[in-house]
Amino acid sequence: MANPIEFYFDFSSPYGYIASCKIDAIAEKHGREVAWRPFLLGVAFKATGGTPLPSIPMKGPYHERDFPRSAKFHGVEYHQPEAFPIATVAPARAFYWLDGKDPKRAKALAKALYHAYFVEGIDISNAENTIAVCAALGLNADEVRAGISDQMVKDRTKAAVDKAIARGAFGSPFIVVDDEPFWGSDRLDQIDKWLHTGGW
Amino acid sequence: MANPIEFYFDFSSPYGYIASCKIDAIAEKHGREVAWRPFLLGVAFKATGGTPLPSIPMKGPYHERDFPRSAKFHGVEYHQPEAFPIATVAPARAFYWLDGKDPKRAKALAKALYHAYFVEGIDISNAENTIAVCAALGLNADEVRAGISDQMVKDRTKAAVDKAIARGAFGSPFIVVDDEPFWGSDRLDQIDKWLHTGGW
Repeated sequence: MANPIEFYFDFSSPYGYIASCKIDAIAEKHGREVAWRPFLLGVAFKATGGTPLPSIPMKGPYHERDFPRSAKFHGVEYHQPEAFPIATVAPARAFYWLDGKDPKRAKALAKALYHAYFVEGIDISNAENTIAVCAALGLNADEVRAGISDQMVKDRTKAAVDKAIARGAFGSPFIVVDDEPFWGSDRLDQIDKWLHTGGW
Repeated sequence: MANPIEFYFDFSSPYGYIASCKIDAIAEKHGREVAWRPFLLGVAFKATGGTPLPSIPMKGPYHERDFPRSAKFHGVEYHQPEAFPIATVAPARAFYWLDGKDPKRAKALAKALYHAYFVEGIDISNAENTIAVCAALGLNADEVRAGISDQMVKDRTKAAVDKAIARGAFGSPFIVVDDEPFWGSDRLDQIDKWLHTGGW
C-alpha cells in the first residue's frame, strides 16, 4: 500500500482550510489515504523569516481579496473571521490528543475546527472555544481540557510541528506526495495530475 | 471596448514567464487585449520587505523544484538559468524604448527576451545580451544601445515601474482584470473564469 499523502496545515490558514475541503476527495480518486498533520506556521516563520500575510504591505490587502475569491473559485463556503490570524496551539493540541486515540475521529475534529473558524467565525485560539467544538462532536469536555494540558500531548504536538518543518513545510497547506512537496491550495490541480501520472 | 488586461511581470520571474506563454490566448478567448508591462520586482520588494525566493530558507529549495514542475504542468518549455535571479533594468528599458514606437513589436520583444533567458539561458541582465536579442528580432543594435541609455526611456521605464507598484504589483506576474488583481501564474484559471463570468 502506498504511503499516505501528508497534509500539513495551520488551523489559521485560509488556503489550508480550502485544501482541507478538497484533499480527501482528490486522494480517494486515486485510491490514496491522507494523513492530516496540523502544525504551527509561526514556528515555520521563525526558520524562514516569514510574517503573517495581513502585516505585509500590498500583499496583505491583496490576500484579503484573494481568500474569499479563491474559496468561491473552489466552491468552498468562507467567511473572513474577525480575529485573524490567530494562534493555533489549542486546536493543534486538541487534534493530537485525539489523534493518539482515534485518528479517524481526529480528522473529523480538524474539519469541525476549520468549519468553526472559517464558516462560523469562532475564535478557536481560545482553548474553551476549541473544547466546545470538541464537545459538539460528542467528546467529553473535561477529558479534552485535561488532554490539551497534558505534557505528553504538548510534546506530541511539538514533535509533529518539528516533523512538518523538517519535511519542508514553510507555508500552509504543504502537501507531500511520495516525497514530492506541493505548497498552496493552488497546487491541488498539480497534485491531482501527479497522482494520476506518478510524476511528469 | 473593454480596457486591456494589465499584465505586470519581471523578466527574471519564472512564474511571469509561464504566464507570458498563456495570457494572450486566455484574453483572446474572451475577446480581450493584453497590455504587457514589465516592471522591476526589486523596487516592489523595497515596499513590501520581500526578498528574492532563492535567498529564503526552505522556500528557496521548494521553488527550485516548483519552477520547472509548474512550467511542465502548463506545457511550457523551461530551463533553469544559471544566473538567477538577475537585474532586469536593461530588458525593461529595451522594452519601453520600443513600446514608445511600436507596442506590438515590443510585445514580441518581451517574448523573445523571456525565451532567451528561460529557454536559451542567456543572461539578459547584461545590456549587450539584451541588445543581441533585439538585433535578432531585426532591430538596429546601435539604435537599441542608444535607446536604453536615453534619459527619456529611463524616465518612461521608471514611471511604468511606479505605476505597476501603485496598481498593487508586489509580485510577478501581477495581472489586473477590470480592477480585479490576480497574483501568480497559478491564478490563470481564476482569470479565465473571471473573464467568462465577469466576477463571481
